Amino acid sequence: MKERALIARLLAPIATHPAARGLLDDAAVLTPPLGRDLVLTHDMLAEGVHFLPGDPPGDIAHKLLAVNLSDLAAMGARPLGVLMGLGLSPRQDEAWLAAFTRGLAEGCQRWSAPLLGGDTIAGLDRLTLGLTAIGQVAPGKTLARVGVRPGDDLWVSGNIGDAGLGLAVALGEHADAAPEQRAALLARYRRPQPRLALGAALGGLASACMDVSDGLLIDAERLADASRVRITVDLARVPRSRCADAIGADTLRLASAGDDYELLFAAAPSDAAALASTARRIGIRLTRIGEASAGEGLVVLGPHGPVTPERLGWEH
Amino acid sequence: MKERALIARLLAPIATHPAARGLLDDAAVLTPPLGRDLVLTHDMLAEGVHFLPGDPPGDIAHKLLAVNLSDLAAMGARPLGVLMGLGLSPRQDEAWLAAFTRGLAEGCQRWSAPLLGGDTIAGLDRLTLGLTAIGQVAPGKTLARVGVRPGDDLWVSGNIGDAGLGLAVALGEHADAAPEQRAALLARYRRPQPRLALGAALGGLASACMDVSDGLLIDAERLADASRVRITVDLARVPRSRCADAIGADTLRLASAGDDYELLFAAAPSDAAALASTARRIGIRLTRIGEASAGEGLVVLGPHGPVTPERLGWEH
Repeated sequence: MKERALIARLLAPIATHPAARGLLDDAAVLTPPLGRDLVLTHDMLAEGVHFLPGDPPGDIAHKLLAVNLSDLAAMGARPLGVLMGLGLSPRQDEAWLAAFTRGLAEGCQRWSAPLLGGDTIAGLDRLTLGLTAIGQVAPGKTLARVGVRPGDDLWVSGNIGDAGLGLAVALGEHADAAPEQRAALLARYRRPQPRLALGAALGGLASACMDVSDGLLIDAERLADASRVRITVDLARVPRSRCADAIGADTLRLASAGDDYELLFAAAPSDAAALASTARRIGIRLTRIGEASAGEGLVVLGPHGPVTPERLGWEH
Repeated sequence: MKERALIARLLAPIATHPAARGLLDDAAVLTPPLGRDLVLTHDMLAEGVHFLPGDPPGDIAHKLLAVNLSDLAAMGARPLGVLMGLGLSPRQDEAWLAAFTRGLAEGCQRWSAPLLGGDTIAGLDRLTLGLTAIGQVAPGKTLARVGVRPGDDLWVSGNIGDAGLGLAVALGEHADAAPEQRAALLARYRRPQPRLALGAALGGLASACMDVSDGLLIDAERLADASRVRITVDLARVPRSRCADAIGADTLRLASAGDDYELLFAAAPSDAAALASTARRIGIRLTRIGEASAGEGLVVLGPHGPVTPERLGWEH
């Protein structure tokens, strides 16, 4: 399909926000909400690097949106819209494009992140995608990696490590697990959930925040480095799913697996009750997995005291 | 070079705008200028598709910025900043990255388009780049492809076709042209100039505008289609450079060559004097190359009346 046909037949029908101007112009025109700061992020995903060649196209679209919206969530922002760069190889035929676009439209609607524009190119060796997400946040409510104070508790949302187990399932591991568990883990890998409601609620409550993309431990280390504090993570407290328990996955493996897209944040101990109330309201599990102290770097606590893991997560 | 080292050593030092937050966070935070609309665009460039594998890295960075800022210019907007997606293949070594970053920093400074954020991935088969440009425009001053009125004059900035001749030079053609002419043409291909000052001046003056990226004729046809008018282009009036004259290039070839990144716009005949004054002030050549009338489609006038060119430009 030529670019103009692709835009006219598949993308323009889902770009219904007025700012997109029907994808007829050289750029989108958006009136920013009054008195808000803009939050801007851009992540790329490539076949064979961030997803597997045979992944369902709708899941690829989901993940492209989710990983970028997760960055907005980590800053406490709500989406205003997205621009997409679609770099196609000869393997994306019309059926693939239709399924991808359906997945994109579903995600844009689910997360109130309208498609505003972008670009399509063809002739690449492998599918390569880029997405820019634009969000809004009230000034002063922006979360950042800087801000953890000694004495803060360290929290994480959801469960950790299921996405990594899902990648292992996709690569043929855990063949003896129950089919519904394998499906649940695959879904965690392919369809991460950006924690937008939580991120917005943490503005003004958390002292610092980031999303877990490369592994809980490596990301905790980055949080410590950015805030110039020491962060201690207690492996016994890292939240595990029932699937992870059923498989008997090692917590150190779960905590260095990556692709969780959960929020890792710090808050004063006096805010624990407010956080519990937030968790109930949003319907998300929040777990206190450690604390910050004066010093630097990451300390990982095993059952018999500090351990030195061979790897903390993905280093790009 | 690992992503973190690349960011810390090469990209963070040039991302000095406060909104970039030193590239330490998951996203940039930008306070939008009060009372302005935002203009957002994203274009991708890939090795072997939009530039040649051996092109100098600084020129690739220049072109990546220029083609996106040209979209802002076409909408009458001024840049606020850019986010970059850098998809690397194993061929981009440290020297390449350093030269690319220097070119990027020069362009960001030249066009007041600070680097605010982005992403870096490795392991691609060919260099694949994406750039999102964010601009600002006064509400009501936005230019669009819709808006050409019957009776309007059709104008274009600069010269047309030199970039296409530059691509031919890069591919080994025109070997008998003078070296300085070959260099000038190559520069037009590799280092297009976004017409930002002109675009901003045309807000409220032009009735419609777009940039010429795929060829003057095909883009004029798109302008006609978007505005639902007929547009007539007189080949005898298409502005040619002295290089194009020296080479004896055919005007039909120049007008379908693409990569010019000049502005193509329409204006009422009564605005001709204001346009002439704008052209003098900015120091750019503006040429009236045709007009719009009731009807539809593109009419190309040759020396003996309407002609039907075999091709109008690049169809993606």
